[in-house]
Formats: sequence, C-alpha cells, structure tokens
Amino acid sequence: MFATRCHLPSVAGIALATAFAVLSITAALADPLPSWNEGPTKAAIVTFVERVTTEGSSDFVPIQERIAVFDNDGTLWVEQPVPAQVAFELACVSANVWKHPDWDTTQPFKAALAGDTSYLAGIGERGFAEILVASHEGWATDDYQTVLMSWMADTRDARFGRPSTDLVYQPMLEVIDYFRRSGFEIYIVSGNSADFMRPWVASVYGIQPDHVIGSTIRTKYEFISGRPQLTRLPEMSRIGDGAGRPAGFYESVGRRPIAAFGNADIDFEMLQWTTTAPGPRLGVVIHHTDAQREYAYDRNTGYGLLDAVLEAAGPNGWLVVDVRKDWKSIFPFETQ
Amino acid sequence: MFATRCHLPSVAGIALATAFAVLSITAALADPLPSWNEGPTKAAIVTFVERVTTEGSSDFVPIQERIAVFDNDGTLWVEQPVPAQVAFELACVSANVWKHPDWDTTQPFKAALAGDTSYLAGIGERGFAEILVASHEGWATDDYQTVLMSWMADTRDARFGRPSTDLVYQPMLEVIDYFRRSGFEIYIVSGNSADFMRPWVASVYGIQPDHVIGSTIRTKYEFISGRPQLTRLPEMSRIGDGAGRPAGFYESVGRRPIAAFGNADIDFEMLQWTTTAPGPRLGVVIHHTDAQREYAYDRNTGYGLLDAVLEAAGPNGWLVVDVRKDWKSIFPFETQ
Repeated sequence: MFATRCHLPSVAGIALATAFAVLSITAALADPLPSWNEGPTKAAIVTFVERVTTEGSSDFVPIQERIAVFDNDGTLWVEQPVPAQVAFELACVSANVWKHPDWDTTQPFKAALAGDTSYLAGIGERGFAEILVASHEGWATDDYQTVLMSWMADTRDARFGRPSTDLVYQPMLEVIDYFRRSGFEIYIVSGNSADFMRPWVASVYGIQPDHVIGSTIRTKYEFISGRPQLTRLPEMSRIGDGAGRPAGFYESVGRRPIAAFGNADIDFEMLQWTTTAPGPRLGVVIHHTDAQREYAYDRNTGYGLLDAVLEAAGPNGWLVVDVRKDWKSIFPFETQ
Repeated sequence: MFATRCHLPSVAGIALATAFAVLSITAALADPLPSWNEGPTKAAIVTFVERVTTEGSSDFVPIQERIAVFDNDGTLWVEQPVPAQVAFELACVSANVWKHPDWDTTQPFKAALAGDTSYLAGIGERGFAEILVASHEGWATDDYQTVLMSWMADTRDARFGRPSTDLVYQPMLEVIDYFRRSGFEIYIVSGNSADFMRPWVASVYGIQPDHVIGSTIRTKYEFISGRPQLTRLPEMSRIGDGAGRPAGFYESVGRRPIAAFGNADIDFEMLQWTTTAPGPRLGVVIHHTDAQREYAYDRNTGYGLLDAVLEAAGPNGWLVVDVRKDWKSIFPFETQ
C-alpha cells in the first residue's frame, strides 16, 4: 500500500512535472514578451502586432510598410540622473577646457564645467548641440569613436555600478526582437548624435548603425598626406529635437512609421506623425514610475519634460506603459 | 537507310540539344554576370567578390563590413543628353514660372526656361541645387512624390522612346544582384536628391529607399488642421557633390565602403575614400565608349567631367569598364 501510494503519486508527479515543463516551454515560445506582466498594456502591444501581420485581415500591413521607431534615452535605456551623452560631453568639455579658456566664463560651458545640471536641463537640445559641436571640433571621426568607446567601457553609473550599455530595458529589448521577427524595420530616432550611438547599437540592440537617425555633426572630407580624413566641423546638419524628428526621419528614410515608442515631450511630434494616419497605428509612452527598481519621474520634474506627451496620450490613443506595474524585470543583468 | 540516317542524327540532335541546354543552365547558374563579356574587367570583379567572401582567406571581409556604393547617373542608368532629374526640374521650372516672374531674367532659371543645357552644364551641383529647392518650395512631400511619379510614368526618352526607369544598365543590375547575394549592403550615393530616387529604387534596383544617400532638401514638420504635414523648405541640408559624398555617407551610415562604382569626376572622392584603406578594396569607373548602343563621352565633353577620375584610375588601381568591349548587352529590354 505504502509503496503503491508512493509510487502512484510519483508517476503522476513526473507526468505533471513533464506536462508543466512542456507547457512552460510552449508558453516561453509563444510569449514574445516574457518580461512584461500580463495585463492590458502587454495585450495591446501583442494585439497590434497580430493585427498588422495577419494576412487577409483588414488591418494587414505589407512588410515594406512595417516600420517602428524608438527613442533611446528613457525609452530603451536609463536617462537618469543625466543621459549618457550629456555625461560624455561634460567629460569632454572638462578635458578640452585648456584649449578654450573662455569656457570658464561662457555659458553653457561654464555650467558644463561646474556640473550645473539644473542649468543644463534648461538649455534644450539646441543648447546641448552647442556643447556637442564645440567639444569635438576638428576631431577626426576615427579619433572621436576611439575616445567614445574607451569612455563607454570605463565609465560606471554611480547607482548601478555598470556601464550605460548594461542599463538597457529588458522588456524593450523583447519588443525590438518581437517587432523584428514580425517583419518590422527598426529605427532609433534620438536627440543624441548618431555618431554617439552607432558604434554600439549592433551589439546592444541588434540594430544596424545606419538605422540610427540622430542629431548629425557635419563632417568635411579631405585628402591629407596621402590619407583620406573625415573631420568634425563645429556645425550640426540636423538636430533631433521634437519637430526635427519627423523631418529628420523623412529626410533620412523617406517613409512614415506605423509604430513609435517614446517617453517625453521631445517624442511628441514623432508619436503624432506616426499615429495620425489611416490604418493601424501604435503610439507608446514609457512612464517611469518605479523609484525602487529604476527611477520615478513625472510631469515637470527631472531631466525630461513629460507634460505634453502624457496629456496627449489619452486623446490620441497612445498606450502608457506604467513601468512599476507592467515590467516584470527591468534590466537584462537581473536575470543573468 | 533513309529512315536510319534520318533517325540517327535526330537522336544525336536531341542528345546534343539536351547537353547544350544543361550546359547553358549550368553556365547561367555559375555565371553571376551573364551580360558581361569575358575578359580582364569581368574577371577582376568576380575575383574581388571571391576574395572577400572566401572564409579563411587573408582577404576575407566579415559580412558587416561588406558595403558597396553606386553612383546613379551614368553608373546605373543613362545620364545623356541630360540626367533625368535635370529634365524633371526644368519641367518644374516651366510649370512654376507664373509664380516667379523674375525667373525670366534671373540665372540659373533663365537658362532652365530656355533649355540652355550648355549654360546649365557649367552651374555644378550647387547651382543645380538652387533650381531644385526653388522649384518645389513649400510643397508637401506627398504632393512632390505624386507629381514626380506621374512625370516618371509619362515622360519618354527622345532617343529610346522609353521612361528613364527602363534605361538602366543590365550589366550593373547583375553586379548589384551579385554583390547582394555575396552579403554586401548596397547603397546609392548620388548628387540627385534622395526624394527624387526613393519612390522607384525598390522596384527598379531592389534597393531599399533608406539606402539612397543623395542631396537632401530640408523639410519642416507641422500639424495643421488636425493633420501632420511635412513641407519642403527652400534649403538643402546636404549636397551630394564630390567631397560631399564621403561626408554625407559617413553622416548617414557611419561606416566606410569597400567597393565603389562611379563614372565621373564627381565620384572621385567617393572612389578615393573607399579604396585608400588597408585590405581588399574595389574602385570601378564606367567609361561610356559605345555611341551606337548607348553614348560615347570622354574627357571634357558632354555633361559629366571625366578628366580627374580617368587619370586617377591607373595610379589608384581602379578598374575602368569599357562599355563597348565589356558589356554584352546594355539594357534589360534588349533581351526581353
């Protein structure tokens, strides 16, 4: 009896365990967004992808029109306490001030040298562009890339003790992967300069360098002493601020996205351009609500301004992601 | 006897025909460039592709570095008697002169209205840019595309009686296809404006719209009466002239090609930037030498200036394609 009683549950247990294992493998295969909690947000993203990829459906979108755009700072990776490119440029201003003694007394360089982030928060993308072009003026593009990659490898975020490229959002990596497998072309549309992002986007996001549409530093081609050289000029040919994003995307890509992900007012126009067209469209706003696991910042607080985009979300039918509720895990290293 | 004599050759004939058919299918499968005559030019292109794609070879190039760039006018399609975009812009100047009475007396518009191609040949890419931005100033990007595609469909080349999109070079379509199948990313780098080419490059060349790096008209994003609108401004954000091409390519793509195809002095810097780097590099200059089947134009004659690029070909190891000798057929419609 004892043996039998033991034996029977044991067989049943193995069978159950096997069944659960199979179910869980099936679920993992079937669930494109395992780091998202079940709920209306996750369901809305999955429903959108299923609508546009189901042949014969009235919402079907041909593969050449499946274009999704993602803001970077605060949408794909952490932008607090300051976005990584801001930190990089401040370091570069400090390293180059000996060549520019006037920076000690001239804004916005004075604020950059003093680490006056509250002043810097108010200078906008165009003020930031002034720092960005000045701090690398005359550099060869190859030298810029060498200095950047060395800084990226050596610099650790104060709170998490990790390089910026570790502080990407696991749920968003899954969205990128899910959209790509569903036939979407994926672009990053950012106020960061394209050359700040291109060297690492392939390894971090699986996105090709030419799929980064960012602010652009004008370069000059010259042939000097038998060698070709591209030199950074003190001039932007494009600034990826709010209204500059749809314009820059059109000038670079020539097409209009059907899905856009952002988190701040600077993403407003890109979300608007993407979603105000006939046919299925998806606009998503990441709302940072989790001070414990990441950061919580809201209307008119912190670096990014969120007023317009959060107010517009309802009337425009944009999905607002509540990080605390919707994301099961935040960073890839949490589950490694 | 008669029956036998008839019968035997007939069987042999079938066998021979079958053998030739098999050989010819095998040859077609094995020959990536069937519209190129055998000879050193074709051999050099095939050898380059085999070198960079043979794993384990010292010349092997990883797939992410296989980038090939092609000029458009005179390299992928006919640029005589005037390049298609010049013809389009001249038509647009005529259609819009009623809004600009000063054009009758102001250059370069006066020359455009008079069809003074010898004057226009001397204004360069920057003079042409002046026409290009003025003739569509304030247009919505959608309207521009509608007018363009209607003009492309309706306009016939005077000599060949065909639309421009038929006057592409079959041997170059084969090169594009061969490079693509060999893992290359293919870009067009042109002085034409990107928005002139993007609507048709996918169907004509199998190249994605965002892989066209051309002159770029600045656009403005606005939200008017509940609808987003992108409007063309009277300003270029990039001009794809000689030295502007490596710079524009770097600003857009962030990488350096290993193969470049061009035909005129305006391609000089792109060829130079591509080929003056360590490792296997390919520079190709198409030399138009066939007045009977297409056009023959040489140093300092006709629209394109070819002096510098032809003189530089030898010292730089660039391959010069002699159209008359190297191309078995010129246009796709010849063999259809």
